[in-house]
Amino acid sequence: MVNDDLSVVKGMKDWFGEEALLRERIVSTLKGIFLRYGFAPLETPSIENMSVLTKKGGGEIQEEIYRAQDQAGRDLGLRFDHTVPLARFVALKKGLKLPYKRYAIGEVFRDGPSQPEQGRYRSFMQCDVDTIGVKDVSAEAELLFLANDAFSAIGLKGIEIRLNNRKILNGLLRGFGVKPELFNNVLVALDKLDKIGERQVIEELQGIEGLGNDEIFQIKNIIELKGSNKDILDALRGLAKNDEAKEGTEELQRILDYTSSLKKGIVKIAPYLARGLDYYTGPIMEVFAVSGNVKSSVLGGGRYDNMIGEFMGSKNKVYAVGFSFGLERIITILQDEKRIEKKLSPAQIFIVPLNTLKESFGITQKLRKAGINVDMDLKGRNIKKSLSYAEALGIPYVGIIGENEIKKGVISVKDLAKRSQKEMSIEELKKKLKE
Amino acid sequence: MVNDDLSVVKGMKDWFGEEALLRERIVSTLKGIFLRYGFAPLETPSIENMSVLTKKGGGEIQEEIYRAQDQAGRDLGLRFDHTVPLARFVALKKGLKLPYKRYAIGEVFRDGPSQPEQGRYRSFMQCDVDTIGVKDVSAEAELLFLANDAFSAIGLKGIEIRLNNRKILNGLLRGFGVKPELFNNVLVALDKLDKIGERQVIEELQGIEGLGNDEIFQIKNIIELKGSNKDILDALRGLAKNDEAKEGTEELQRILDYTSSLKKGIVKIAPYLARGLDYYTGPIMEVFAVSGNVKSSVLGGGRYDNMIGEFMGSKNKVYAVGFSFGLERIITILQDEKRIEKKLSPAQIFIVPLNTLKESFGITQKLRKAGINVDMDLKGRNIKKSLSYAEALGIPYVGIIGENEIKKGVISVKDLAKRSQKEMSIEELKKKLKE
Repeated sequence: MVNDDLSVVKGMKDWFGEEALLRERIVSTLKGIFLRYGFAPLETPSIENMSVLTKKGGGEIQEEIYRAQDQAGRDLGLRFDHTVPLARFVALKKGLKLPYKRYAIGEVFRDGPSQPEQGRYRSFMQCDVDTIGVKDVSAEAELLFLANDAFSAIGLKGIEIRLNNRKILNGLLRGFGVKPELFNNVLVALDKLDKIGERQVIEELQGIEGLGNDEIFQIKNIIELKGSNKDILDALRGLAKNDEAKEGTEELQRILDYTSSLKKGIVKIAPYLARGLDYYTGPIMEVFAVSGNVKSSVLGGGRYDNMIGEFMGSKNKVYAVGFSFGLERIITILQDEKRIEKKLSPAQIFIVPLNTLKESFGITQKLRKAGINVDMDLKGRNIKKSLSYAEALGIPYVGIIGENEIKKGVISVKDLAKRSQKEMSIEELKKKLKE
Repeated sequence: MVNDDLSVVKGMKDWFGEEALLRERIVSTLKGIFLRYGFAPLETPSIENMSVLTKKGGGEIQEEIYRAQDQAGRDLGLRFDHTVPLARFVALKKGLKLPYKRYAIGEVFRDGPSQPEQGRYRSFMQCDVDTIGVKDVSAEAELLFLANDAFSAIGLKGIEIRLNNRKILNGLLRGFGVKPELFNNVLVALDKLDKIGERQVIEELQGIEGLGNDEIFQIKNIIELKGSNKDILDALRGLAKNDEAKEGTEELQRILDYTSSLKKGIVKIAPYLARGLDYYTGPIMEVFAVSGNVKSSVLGGGRYDNMIGEFMGSKNKVYAVGFSFGLERIITILQDEKRIEKKLSPAQIFIVPLNTLKESFGITQKLRKAGINVDMDLKGRNIKKSLSYAEALGIPYVGIIGENEIKKGVISVKDLAKRSQKEMSIEELKKKLKE
């Protein structure tokens, strides 16, 4: 009956049932936190002119753009992140008050490799917060508070916030005599430290053409840094021979000071952390969810003070710091932790009218008015079929309303887990479901 | 500084500031109501295979599809509604429990005429609820309750729900001897009755080739129907000579019975209502927001029992009823009614640290933990600049925290509307902002 050309787009996915309910809950939670921190929504279309998408930012991601066209033949493409549309918006918006703090939650598209088992699809939901126009790293500090609150609200308890500064990395590499054109390759290798270990990182460094043994020997100083944040910062201060690296360490120190009220040990200086995108100019962060031995990246971000200015064709910096939450990754972790309820419906109770459809509509409305999520049989099915339907959808209670119940002014409420049944007045039922 | 090729896609729009905050509020409200009625989220990608988009449904809208392509050259397009992706999903999903009640909130794309002043853009947010698998019009009744709750929650008070049935229209036209191939043209003319009046509708009917005077004379019977729902239904029963029309009137009667607990007069039988899409097979509804003399359509929907089955290539009907809320229209009406607050920020208070950044972060976090939306100066600006910033963003309170305030354990709170200032403890401030 179903043939191939009815399929979902290659590499993409429909979100249904318990997964969709969970996504919905997480997105609502994030939104609430973003608003709590004074970030306002900005909604831009999913589709942009190609001239915008290819202007700046994104780097290699630009090779993964889905192209589109309107009837007039305009050259369009689907956005691959929320940062480029933000840069366009800031460039276009006259009289925009700075600081401008905005969030964006929406689908982005990348025609790259998809890895469903890791929650990686060609269309995915990106949840971004960005602060535009703040030079001080207080903006970063605020976002660390936000990240901590967000993951705690979502219920991901074991998180680790890794913090570094591109200024330190660049300053140190420069000080070590590494040629600037090699920085990117070195950073890519360093960034893998946590995954592949010291020995392999050094092997990768040795494979970088033009990078000398003496330089690698010095880069080892970064790789081997260990200990408390204080130990690492002290060591970095010792290594920092130029203003760039020194400024970088002082910025990290300031971020730690501002966020000192966060739980001890949650923020960790990670001197090897580099992050992929080449537009970062200052502090960078990545948040990992720790579950047993597995650490999964669930948020990344950093400061990018040059990108928007360059985008606008201006010589002035436009200060910018942004964080991006990976919704699919978070879902995958919650699934791995079996934290997803088997629920296909948001309903708390399933009302079964037995020849009382009109009256049952009225009663159902009263429950809904009290803020309870209610579903109701609309097919005139018998009790047995209704129970099996409610059970399949993961609805915990069934409320039967026959003529007898109407007469007595009650509902016969079945608790599907306990396999028990009890007559309740509407008020009693409201109270029970509000618990 | 800004050049043309940084523009937003032609016919589209960025949603910013108070408009974006309002959209966010309405979407959250609708979502809450959808969940309250037991509708579960379904998220499908914005992009579909063209084979899916062109298979069924949409009619003329198919000419407005934005085409897209991936690197492998697949023929893709942007969705123009949520109904086609729903049909695809139902066709693909094995073991889907019926009834399946889902909502979808997301961007859809139509490369048609854009009319910004009427809130009409080429990319817009559609908020849909659909019930799949219910033959009885209890599904329609449930959606009428939902629509009524939704508009009341949004704050659009003066609404009018118009209700009709394609079975009545088709049955009557058949009974009048109108040729089936003319039905569509006749319905398009009838549908305009409320806008252009009787005389002009009749002129339009006279312009339909193949439609005789005798038939027009009979169609007048529909046009001239007036009075209460009961009067109109009685008259329709009198006109109904075949089973189709009779069944249609009985379905409307049943919907009125089921929804009798709704406010009197809110549901109006509108025998001329036809609605554009040709896939409707039964009851159809349109909701109008009434503001003075202006009536604007804010929701439309109806029953489409054939579309999904045809989509699946099955001979079986798949019963379906759906409603679609037009977010942009709702926004336009609230704007016309000047119901939008001048607010660029969700924050309730703007904290100004005077050389107390670290301590202020701690205090700000306490307020946020209490559920208050708080923004904070991160630029080290003086009081005057901070006040003017908070005022520009529409944040009602400013809380100043200097060294003196820290010592006394208070915050100096300025009420920007009242131009007053008062020292408050954190607890007092929490209480005030929670009011």
